[in-house]
Amino acid sequence: MEHRYLENLPLSKAKALLEDHLRAAGFAPQTQVLPVQDACGHGLKNAVYAHICAPHYNASAMDGVAVKAATTFGASERTPVTLRPADYVVVDTGDPLPEGTDAVIMVEDLIDKPNGCYEIIAAVHPWQNVRQVGEDLCMGDMIAPSGTVLTPSLCGALLAGGVTQVEVIRAPKVGVIPTGDEIVAPTSDPQPGDIIEFNSAVFRGMLENWGAAVTVYPITPDKKELIRASVETALNECDIVLVSAGSSAGRDDYTSEIIASLGTVLVHGIAIKPGKPAVLGEAQGKPVVGLPGYPVSAIVVMDEIVRDLVYFAVGTQAPPWETVSAVLSKKLVSSLKYREYVRVTLGKIGERWSASPLPRGAGVISSFTKADGLLIVDQDCEGIEAGETVEVRLLRPQETLAHTLIVTGSHDPLIDEVADLLQKSGAPFRVCSSHVGSMGAIRAVGSGLAHLGGIHLLDTETGEYNKSYVKKYFPNGGAAIVKGVGRVQGLMVKKGNPCGIQSFADVARVRYVNRQHGAGTRILCDYLLAQNGIDPAAVNGYDNEEFTHTAVAALIAAGNADTGLGIWSAAKIYNLDFIPICTETYEFLVDERYIDDPMVLSFFETLHSNACRQRLDAMGGYLLED
Amino acid sequence: MEHRYLENLPLSKAKALLEDHLRAAGFAPQTQVLPVQDACGHGLKNAVYAHICAPHYNASAMDGVAVKAATTFGASERTPVTLRPADYVVVDTGDPLPEGTDAVIMVEDLIDKPNGCYEIIAAVHPWQNVRQVGEDLCMGDMIAPSGTVLTPSLCGALLAGGVTQVEVIRAPKVGVIPTGDEIVAPTSDPQPGDIIEFNSAVFRGMLENWGAAVTVYPITPDKKELIRASVETALNECDIVLVSAGSSAGRDDYTSEIIASLGTVLVHGIAIKPGKPAVLGEAQGKPVVGLPGYPVSAIVVMDEIVRDLVYFAVGTQAPPWETVSAVLSKKLVSSLKYREYVRVTLGKIGERWSASPLPRGAGVISSFTKADGLLIVDQDCEGIEAGETVEVRLLRPQETLAHTLIVTGSHDPLIDEVADLLQKSGAPFRVCSSHVGSMGAIRAVGSGLAHLGGIHLLDTETGEYNKSYVKKYFPNGGAAIVKGVGRVQGLMVKKGNPCGIQSFADVARVRYVNRQHGAGTRILCDYLLAQNGIDPAAVNGYDNEEFTHTAVAALIAAGNADTGLGIWSAAKIYNLDFIPICTETYEFLVDERYIDDPMVLSFFETLHSNACRQRLDAMGGYLLED
Repeated sequence: MEHRYLENLPLSKAKALLEDHLRAAGFAPQTQVLPVQDACGHGLKNAVYAHICAPHYNASAMDGVAVKAATTFGASERTPVTLRPADYVVVDTGDPLPEGTDAVIMVEDLIDKPNGCYEIIAAVHPWQNVRQVGEDLCMGDMIAPSGTVLTPSLCGALLAGGVTQVEVIRAPKVGVIPTGDEIVAPTSDPQPGDIIEFNSAVFRGMLENWGAAVTVYPITPDKKELIRASVETALNECDIVLVSAGSSAGRDDYTSEIIASLGTVLVHGIAIKPGKPAVLGEAQGKPVVGLPGYPVSAIVVMDEIVRDLVYFAVGTQAPPWETVSAVLSKKLVSSLKYREYVRVTLGKIGERWSASPLPRGAGVISSFTKADGLLIVDQDCEGIEAGETVEVRLLRPQETLAHTLIVTGSHDPLIDEVADLLQKSGAPFRVCSSHVGSMGAIRAVGSGLAHLGGIHLLDTETGEYNKSYVKKYFPNGGAAIVKGVGRVQGLMVKKGNPCGIQSFADVARVRYVNRQHGAGTRILCDYLLAQNGIDPAAVNGYDNEEFTHTAVAALIAAGNADTGLGIWSAAKIYNLDFIPICTETYEFLVDERYIDDPMVLSFFETLHSNACRQRLDAMGGYLLED
Repeated sequence: MEHRYLENLPLSKAKALLEDHLRAAGFAPQTQVLPVQDACGHGLKNAVYAHICAPHYNASAMDGVAVKAATTFGASERTPVTLRPADYVVVDTGDPLPEGTDAVIMVEDLIDKPNGCYEIIAAVHPWQNVRQVGEDLCMGDMIAPSGTVLTPSLCGALLAGGVTQVEVIRAPKVGVIPTGDEIVAPTSDPQPGDIIEFNSAVFRGMLENWGAAVTVYPITPDKKELIRASVETALNECDIVLVSAGSSAGRDDYTSEIIASLGTVLVHGIAIKPGKPAVLGEAQGKPVVGLPGYPVSAIVVMDEIVRDLVYFAVGTQAPPWETVSAVLSKKLVSSLKYREYVRVTLGKIGERWSASPLPRGAGVISSFTKADGLLIVDQDCEGIEAGETVEVRLLRPQETLAHTLIVTGSHDPLIDEVADLLQKSGAPFRVCSSHVGSMGAIRAVGSGLAHLGGIHLLDTETGEYNKSYVKKYFPNGGAAIVKGVGRVQGLMVKKGNPCGIQSFADVARVRYVNRQHGAGTRILCDYLLAQNGIDPAAVNGYDNEEFTHTAVAALIAAGNADTGLGIWSAAKIYNLDFIPICTETYEFLVDERYIDDPMVLSFFETLHSNACRQRLDAMGGYLLED
């Protein structure tokens, strides 16, 4: 089997190669002429000057009467002046000043007299209450220099100055070509082997946020000539072309070859992780970028390479990334081969920001949706110790992150339901939950990484839940237990129970799927194994660890395992049979410093609300006291 | 003549009245169902759960061969294992794992052997290099709670989870109805009395920035029934209706009456300046707002009233205004009748922000385009002293304002030309110029309000320019003079010189238009009057003051005056005749602390460039030394 290797060029070198080449090839912002009304937000190609004065005639600034100012001279309370009909012309605001008049008296200052006369008790001076020609803008004045991004009021000023069209930098057109034999358009019913093509939707959203106009081309199968034809079409129609997938060096990876045949490949392989298998090239003076197929890899290449290209074509500089300094919650090992982009969640507990790394799989788009930030580990750094302060590139506004309730610990879907109910009620904060198991909750709350955490920790000696653990790990206090729910744990098996599992003892003879070390359900598993005298090493799949109840259920439904421990609501979703094993107490451990925090209070208020009870009843398997 | 008076309700009361009424009337965000690909940036109506697992099948995570892990157990460098063709299936990344296999060996780890065999020197464990079902998302897991604004990666996650459509808050539809008999669509050739309708373009830009979808209806004349019909149409098609102009209480002001006939008028007249004549009402459960006709008044009502309505309908809260603390550069008097919105320019000189009020005319849209911020003076405040620190609401990003070269002083269009050349060259800063006259430049540079300023100050005793003034006002140094240009000053008159003006002495017998106190050209005027023995009080129009050369030229061209002093380039623009009077030295006064500032250096480099020389030659009337 053939295997080619990619380059491993440092990011800065790769970018410089691309940018220098593109500049030499004439890649530049493009312009278009737009009606001013449609040009808001665009940058001006050239300086714009007023074509006419604004106002372009002498206009009454008030409702009232226009007069020759001289006829009013001397008017006072003692010596009022009478205006006869021949002395004035009635005008409304905006009316042109009639011939022979040079001032306006406000309607409020007119005293009605018989025969169409008015009396006034104050004089007006020439041009009083008149907007003289050019008061706002004078013909020939520069309204805005080149490059100015048009604001709403600037559009108004241009129109007031008689400018009806402007040449502006137009949104760069970016073409996205999804490729691959197995990929299919988004569907809720894919067949095995079908890969749902969602990357182009991600790219489109990112590109539009940066100011591009995006065309997503039809999915092109892995046929060199078809992809080449798509790239040629896109090169004719767009300013920047992105080819999604096929950027590596495998059997069906044609991007590099196609770019080389149409123009120049500048880089194939960048020393970043994820994101290494990227192709940077140029054809027809335009950038052509081959993006990796894994979504997280592709997003990193989009952020690090494509973003600057788009902003350049928009005629501006990419805004600097917002960052925050945070304390790293656990040790991070990184390779000297790559500059690494680690997705992290961020928590602001009290005044301290902490950053917790998420799983690093390049295929896991949810790691990006869960991430609050990116911790970028330089290529020359082997790792970072827990407790060190790191700079994190924000993926959400700092303001949002600062108003986030951090809930960690044991997985239970009820946390998501409470979060949703809070959002529906208009709570001024969001809930960020992560699944680190019950022991993870104890560690996180103990070290100030979370406001609260879900726990269901069985004391195998007393049969009691949670209390003894809190006593042990918080000997000096500092954490409180808040009542949660009872829930039924059991063995999930395929519909009809094909392996004939009757009790926990049967796990010894089938393929098991386990929960991760530290999970309450793992502790329960170990307790049950010991009770049944089963050696963990003898359980097929004991080392196959998952982080959530639904993940365990999904693997049983898929046939990767025959059984596993979990909650009833998860079994229901996957249409699995459920063999109840025990009822446990799922409660919340709360950092005592935040027990009166409005976010924490709202969380528990919602948890104990009727709306939440209704949702848990619908999910099933929860025992709720009154 | 009839005159009605408006209410004068404090802003907070007016807003509360409107919002309470709208809530009771059922005004709420509206939703629509969109394909996920089109929904980026929208907020979710409800929580969304994964419909399927992602991946939804066991997928190879690598290019390589799929095997049953058990066949590889025991493989090491010493005890390699041979895979015969029956033991493996070639797979690419993303391929479904073939029946009977549970792991993948990477292509890099395969050693080619004869007869289609591979040798391996390391075992794989079950599920190694496999993306198991649900690795990314599990069916039934909540992907995002209600209200979440969809990001690009979240759109990807939804599609990965088999969610193809989502119910989202849709952009509120806002209808804008421009009204008025005299208003005309934007044109560069309006007739006298035609008012160019640019307000709707300003509103559209603002509304779109806030997330609305805008319909601008055709201009409707001041006929009650026609406007009423337009409002009814807009109420049927939109969520929020804005009527532009006609919101006051004059003869042709129908907005209030029309809203009352269709629903409820809640407020007519708000204690804000500008912006008082606004109408706030409700019809069909939707807000109907009557906006003042003057653009600056309307913009204030848009920002203070309509912005919150739009954000509410978008399903979110309006972001807080960015503000900066600045030292007020001159005393400001304000009325106790109104909360006042004063447009200010902001300058960051060294570390200190200063705020300088701009003219307050409500009709002057350019005061908004020039403004960097709004200083809001509370209703119960009579004024603010120069030197006090004030909070200013920013109209431009702070980052932009912090990188601004502040040029003030005497008006000359060359400053705008230099600013444009700097923008074209990609300078990383902008130039903000204001016209405060030559003496204004001395004051501004002297008190740290500007980096530099243009001056042309004639010493009437020596006939020399600028030097003696700098000596007098900077006795201890602190400011330097940088060479500028020579320019010709003269009297501008209408083409053909209808008044037969021959020399400056003739200004005594015609209508003059003057420059403001402190302008270099005003000092020249006073010097010439004295030289000619003319009493200023005898000059018709001596008190008619303008701030720029083009403003003087515009008034002469319009016939408001017969002559005025100014530079040749201004006369040329207005096709005026020009009677040269003298050649003067226009130079720049620079705060010595910033003489080596990169912005200042770039400014002078550009001023003395060939590109600038070409522009000045084209404008005419400048004398440039080599």
